[in-house]
Amino acid sequence: MEKSLVFGHQNPDTDAIGAAISYSYLLNQLGHNTEAVALGTPNEETQFALDHFGLTAPRVIETAANEVSQVVLVDHNEEQQSVADIHEVEVTRVVDHHRIANFQTSNPLYYRAEPVGCTSTILYKMFKESGVTFPKEIAGIMCSAIISDTLLFKSPTCTKEDEVAARSLAGYADVEIEEYGLEMLKAGTNLGDKSALELLDLDAKSFPLKGANVRIAQVNTVDLEEVLARKEELLTAMEAENAEKGYDLFLLVVTNILTSNSLLLAQGSHLDKVATAFGTTLTENQAELKGVVSRKKQVVPPLTKAFEA
Amino acid sequence: MEKSLVFGHQNPDTDAIGAAISYSYLLNQLGHNTEAVALGTPNEETQFALDHFGLTAPRVIETAANEVSQVVLVDHNEEQQSVADIHEVEVTRVVDHHRIANFQTSNPLYYRAEPVGCTSTILYKMFKESGVTFPKEIAGIMCSAIISDTLLFKSPTCTKEDEVAARSLAGYADVEIEEYGLEMLKAGTNLGDKSALELLDLDAKSFPLKGANVRIAQVNTVDLEEVLARKEELLTAMEAENAEKGYDLFLLVVTNILTSNSLLLAQGSHLDKVATAFGTTLTENQAELKGVVSRKKQVVPPLTKAFEA
Repeated sequence: MEKSLVFGHQNPDTDAIGAAISYSYLLNQLGHNTEAVALGTPNEETQFALDHFGLTAPRVIETAANEVSQVVLVDHNEEQQSVADIHEVEVTRVVDHHRIANFQTSNPLYYRAEPVGCTSTILYKMFKESGVTFPKEIAGIMCSAIISDTLLFKSPTCTKEDEVAARSLAGYADVEIEEYGLEMLKAGTNLGDKSALELLDLDAKSFPLKGANVRIAQVNTVDLEEVLARKEELLTAMEAENAEKGYDLFLLVVTNILTSNSLLLAQGSHLDKVATAFGTTLTENQAELKGVVSRKKQVVPPLTKAFEA
Repeated sequence: MEKSLVFGHQNPDTDAIGAAISYSYLLNQLGHNTEAVALGTPNEETQFALDHFGLTAPRVIETAANEVSQVVLVDHNEEQQSVADIHEVEVTRVVDHHRIANFQTSNPLYYRAEPVGCTSTILYKMFKESGVTFPKEIAGIMCSAIISDTLLFKSPTCTKEDEVAARSLAGYADVEIEEYGLEMLKAGTNLGDKSALELLDLDAKSFPLKGANVRIAQVNTVDLEEVLARKEELLTAMEAENAEKGYDLFLLVVTNILTSNSLLLAQGSHLDKVATAFGTTLTENQAELKGVVSRKKQVVPPLTKAFEA
């Protein structure tokens, strides 16, 4: 049988890499011929999880059509988040938990999306439905992905199904989920050895809001003071990014995973709209966002509303 | 809980109506509040199946936004096949077995597509997965939908899963599948009381092929001679349709469900490409297509190839 590549989105996080590994495993158990690959190297959180369960990071690819004619997407579907030559291969399967956009096929395909907090939660159900059992390391990386996407169940994107799946997987993986989860999340908060620019690029997405080009970066931390000590350096780097990349506004959301609160740094135009969006005032480009941990559910929607008002 | 409407595509067939009825039933059993509706009245085959199992045809709607803010699509996803005001409502769920195109959402949703012969085959698996049992009439309309889409397992679009699901559902529905299936398919072949134009419009789709606007209609029959006796009337109506609707080429595929062969009538330009596509010659706008029963798998692909050559 011809081989397919299975991969998640660019700038991969723990779900993008974990879902590729576990879906490839499931498909191969069901008689398919697939290889999990990635569109980038693991971040420190993901590497911690891979190391903990004795897994190797998937091979990084730049293009797919030079190797295969068919691919399987996990944790994304939009073409601009996918492999560069996505139009030159056939997408035969997708498992995802995002909106569907900028996606089109010529043929019928297998597509499974559910509005849950993590792709690996859907894969957990697919393992159960197909009767394939979880090896310890596969359960481990799937559990890690759910912990990562839901911030250990604290994100408003987390559903009951995510928590049920993660706790069940923790059993198969033989980890104490609260202890392991916090350790894994902390591994991703090692910001000290990164330049301001690296930090701004760790997990950043662009959003067109009423004609304004808004960049929103997010980092997790267990030590807000460590990040605040670098405030001037960060604001300068944000200003430089705006000038170089043409962003109108740059937001950095620094999320304390222990308290589930965030600190916001904002640089550029439309600072009044930022203040309106979060019902607060910006003091020296800074605001506290109490209870905010999700960019998708708690940052983008109020910003969109403020820009459209 | 706010109500959602569940519906299939325009010009509904037995799967479009059957899948709406059965998915609405499944969702309601799982605690949702939905109503199955339709974008048109049942054809004679579908009405036969509804009557056989004591089901009422779903209410026909023209628009959705005047009633609900959320809808569930079955057996289609492309906007031009859906309700007229699809952009004014939120699609929260899709169950389908077609390609994905002309489809976009703002929010994550539930999407389940599989490359099988019938939407009801996917729904059969979803009932099993959720542990909801099949009432006799629901199993009956689901079984009917699979018989319809696969021409009683004879279509090349039929997969092993379709046949397994249909035979299992026939058990719940308490029908002898070969006997009931042929009777139901025959009910859809009552062409004698239809005008030529009605016949051309029963099940017709347009395809843009290399700039040519090609209309492909298909009817099922158990009596080819009955249709052939009306050949001149049909060719005249096809010519009139080409002139009025701007089609470059009109094809009518008349499929004998007893022998699994089709007769082709062609009217308009590019008749040489039609002959090339099927490796045959057209005699007085007519050709025999041996073993051809599927427009999707056996008519559109060779035509596409011939037009692109």
